[in-house]
Amino acid sequence: MFYRINMATLAVNEDEGIAYQGLGGRALSSHIVEKEVDPNSHALGDGNKLVFVTSLLSGTGAPNGGRMSLGGKSPLTGTIKESNVGGNMGHKLGRLGIRGIIVEGLPQDDKTYIIKASTAGVLLEEMPALKGLNIYDTVAKLQEKFGAKVAIGCIGTAGENKMASACVGFTDMEGCPTRQAGRGGLGAVMGSKGIKAIVADDSGAKAVPFVDEAAFRAGGKKLANALLTHPVTSKALPAYGTAVLVNILNEAGGLPTQNFSTGRFEGANNVGGETMAENIKERGGKVGHGCSPGCIIRCSQIYKDKKGEVLTGGFEYESCWAFGPHLGVDNLDDVALMNRLCDDYGVDSIEMGVAIGVAMEAGVIKFGDSQGAIDLIHQMGKATPLGRILGAGTETTGKVFGVRRVPIVKGQAIPAYDPRAVKGQGVTYATTTMGADHTAGYAVTANILGVGGKIDPLKPEGQVELSRNLQIATAFVDSTGLCLFVAFAILDMPEALEGIVEMCNAQYGWNKTVGDYLEMGKQALRDERAFNKAAGIGDGADDLPDFFRKEALSPHDVVFDVPKKELDTVFNF
Amino acid sequence: MFYRINMATLAVNEDEGIAYQGLGGRALSSHIVEKEVDPNSHALGDGNKLVFVTSLLSGTGAPNGGRMSLGGKSPLTGTIKESNVGGNMGHKLGRLGIRGIIVEGLPQDDKTYIIKASTAGVLLEEMPALKGLNIYDTVAKLQEKFGAKVAIGCIGTAGENKMASACVGFTDMEGCPTRQAGRGGLGAVMGSKGIKAIVADDSGAKAVPFVDEAAFRAGGKKLANALLTHPVTSKALPAYGTAVLVNILNEAGGLPTQNFSTGRFEGANNVGGETMAENIKERGGKVGHGCSPGCIIRCSQIYKDKKGEVLTGGFEYESCWAFGPHLGVDNLDDVALMNRLCDDYGVDSIEMGVAIGVAMEAGVIKFGDSQGAIDLIHQMGKATPLGRILGAGTETTGKVFGVRRVPIVKGQAIPAYDPRAVKGQGVTYATTTMGADHTAGYAVTANILGVGGKIDPLKPEGQVELSRNLQIATAFVDSTGLCLFVAFAILDMPEALEGIVEMCNAQYGWNKTVGDYLEMGKQALRDERAFNKAAGIGDGADDLPDFFRKEALSPHDVVFDVPKKELDTVFNF
Repeated sequence: MFYRINMATLAVNEDEGIAYQGLGGRALSSHIVEKEVDPNSHALGDGNKLVFVTSLLSGTGAPNGGRMSLGGKSPLTGTIKESNVGGNMGHKLGRLGIRGIIVEGLPQDDKTYIIKASTAGVLLEEMPALKGLNIYDTVAKLQEKFGAKVAIGCIGTAGENKMASACVGFTDMEGCPTRQAGRGGLGAVMGSKGIKAIVADDSGAKAVPFVDEAAFRAGGKKLANALLTHPVTSKALPAYGTAVLVNILNEAGGLPTQNFSTGRFEGANNVGGETMAENIKERGGKVGHGCSPGCIIRCSQIYKDKKGEVLTGGFEYESCWAFGPHLGVDNLDDVALMNRLCDDYGVDSIEMGVAIGVAMEAGVIKFGDSQGAIDLIHQMGKATPLGRILGAGTETTGKVFGVRRVPIVKGQAIPAYDPRAVKGQGVTYATTTMGADHTAGYAVTANILGVGGKIDPLKPEGQVELSRNLQIATAFVDSTGLCLFVAFAILDMPEALEGIVEMCNAQYGWNKTVGDYLEMGKQALRDERAFNKAAGIGDGADDLPDFFRKEALSPHDVVFDVPKKELDTVFNF
Repeated sequence: MFYRINMATLAVNEDEGIAYQGLGGRALSSHIVEKEVDPNSHALGDGNKLVFVTSLLSGTGAPNGGRMSLGGKSPLTGTIKESNVGGNMGHKLGRLGIRGIIVEGLPQDDKTYIIKASTAGVLLEEMPALKGLNIYDTVAKLQEKFGAKVAIGCIGTAGENKMASACVGFTDMEGCPTRQAGRGGLGAVMGSKGIKAIVADDSGAKAVPFVDEAAFRAGGKKLANALLTHPVTSKALPAYGTAVLVNILNEAGGLPTQNFSTGRFEGANNVGGETMAENIKERGGKVGHGCSPGCIIRCSQIYKDKKGEVLTGGFEYESCWAFGPHLGVDNLDDVALMNRLCDDYGVDSIEMGVAIGVAMEAGVIKFGDSQGAIDLIHQMGKATPLGRILGAGTETTGKVFGVRRVPIVKGQAIPAYDPRAVKGQGVTYATTTMGADHTAGYAVTANILGVGGKIDPLKPEGQVELSRNLQIATAFVDSTGLCLFVAFAILDMPEALEGIVEMCNAQYGWNKTVGDYLEMGKQALRDERAFNKAAGIGDGADDLPDFFRKEALSPHDVVFDVPKKELDTVFNF
């Protein structure tokens, strides 16, 4: 069932969503946005919609199948945006039989609303007490009212202040808001619509129906076995989290340091996954924490400060990088505090970190000044003029301060893999419909990890094909609700993909092939590109900032040299 | 002769510019930028170039033929930019036989340079004393050194601070910096290259050669007679300046008031050309002032404050509007002070005024608060965080403060004619290659003034054809060095255009037809569109912000309703 919420009238209507049958997650979100949102709309205006959708496997308990998608036109990039998130919301909405909640229009007043989903359906409720609260406090207040077991997604002050890099924070299985629909500023869209939170209570929900439950379970087992066998998903990720990549990328010379000035950072190990695991061991906390129902990879963690108080969790490589090497900071506790502050104010940690790095390049504060960086995040939270600049994202920060080295594509910050030394990532950043997004075609696999083959990360050859195939496959994976990390297994173990196909077919009684599912991914990409083109963002925008093509990166002394003409072939399918 | 200045090596080289023969002004500037600047360059980076070019008729003394063009990639819009300017620079460079000065690369140090053009050629000179000065002081210092008769173009602190709406200020015939290459932020490009000023001394220059001087004079006479006969160029403009339009647009219901909320402003007459002329009569000053050699329209003025001190000049309708009705301000002296401050700090008065209106919409200060607005301009001058936000332009101001009613196209502020009530202007704003630019296809002619026919401004019919023809003709006029206001005569009196064609042919010994010259205009537009497309700005960006299509404008209760599909036919030629 779909629900449409009209914020102008406060009406909530059920909608069978006939046009959207057979889709889930990213494919569904992008299709709705492409069909229903005028690409010329202002992202914060009444023409934009905020879409919460579940995925093909939501609510089933499929291994690592708990993710969902948020969609809309991005206030950060002006492109279409699908922001994929873990935590416990996707599973609960799936169990409630909800395929999508489409929030339309703008409210006529300045009140604070929440969306409540339960077996009684979807309701809109005014909740003035939440106004002005940050995410941890919002979650606490909602748990007080609705109990500790509900799933919550909410915005902090950044979203209420309509900052273009505001995220939506989601609770994990412990009810802690450590997961974010982070990129592209959908928190600001939520704020513009007066929605402070979405709450899902699945108590009393019936089990999700399967057309062929036995076949589903068999498919799930294949995938689970693969995940429990592959070295990345069974060893590295549970032991150290994604931050295991700090030392790996540093070794590869692709760890962007001090605003993409060099590819190696002297203090890398101090902010890497190994140090994180040591600190957790010493202080308590947890490694091998799963963020969403069904997770068997468990790359998340709970990180405590020196006093043993919980500081943050879901503390990813990209955040460690953004507040660490990118800023020239090598103190993991400072990095963890910055991550916590971003999660609490409700802003994308990648965008915020990269923006601070650009402010450092402008001389606002010095590289390495972690206290200064923490202060800047507080300024963002307080919405001072300087804080608002940073909250508007990296491109805006660069423009306001007249900086020429601004690591963005289509208005979104380039994350933690230098595109000169990990050229497959460079192709993905340059061409993805989402603005620079590392997850859209994660070429770190074949470029760095030797997963799914090996392609020399320093050479331009083969990167376009690698990125194209990954972008198509990812668009499909992001439609299933499966965590993208299942791709490690898929790329090396045929039975993983078989298991996924079998699960999807068994749940819906379909007889689709791998090709059919990849076609779903292709169609998502086509929808997204059609939206972007109509919004005025043409193929010319599919490139990296010119400094990546001109400034050689140490230690490998490489520039980004995949020709623009080749970039233009990524979507030749 | 062309000169290339390489800021990385500080070398100045002569260049015959073979590829650029037969072009001038906008056609020349845009052709150079399209051929030589990588559209993916950062506007403040070493890949961008700053181009100063003279026009087809520069240096000849042709009636109203004293204008020149600056070009480059715009830091404001990311598009190509040609900024056309009056004053005495174009004439002097023309007399020196200079077709273009192309500034390339970035300096390796933080020094302050000036470009000096004279009969000795073009030189680069370090002049540290100018650093940090605003435009009036810079001009004074340069006049001290080089004499009162030189032409000067320079940046203020806004340009040094690389603000995306920084302009380049130029001296008029009295040596007062009242003329601006205003739009698109080329002052920031100049600042990025370490160039504080360009100075031209034409003493000792020989007269510009003519192939057929008699025919040139005869053509000039035809144009001059037309300008001295047409009621707009012979009466309205010299008597009241362009600010005569305040009451006209107010009467037409197309005077955008309080950030485009209504089309009429109660205090309009207080900030209009008639009041301006009265104040000037009372306090001294001058109406009917010509800004550049050969001007016979004389729409400029010198405006004094209540104490009789010169406050500002070249005080255009669009600036009166931006600081007046747009902000809800009806005090002309406050408006004049804001204009002066912008001219002095060196920022585009339109962009600054519109940005302040958006800040007012965000609640930063209230509509009508002129003292608050003056303070914001000083903050821009001091480069405080809030001032930098405004200096980065209207789009950035809207993004930083989360405003949804942001009057921009392609990142440039929409000026003083509401596109809902002057729909031909709306088509021009939506489609011009420059971002919203009223001069690119000035449909106010047939829409409001009844010049060149009459087309109902409130109806969508006929506006696309009107804008198309005007955009082509304008691109040619902006290539000749003629003031755009010759178009009033051209549109109503065939002999005006004949005179222009005869002058161009006589100067160069050409035998070109009107069609040939319009082809020059078309080619300029093609060059500009090719650049923009390669820079990622596609046809989808040719539209107005959606609120113009949704919010009806009083008093005529009209929305902008030229269909997007029709907008897409503007460049079908």
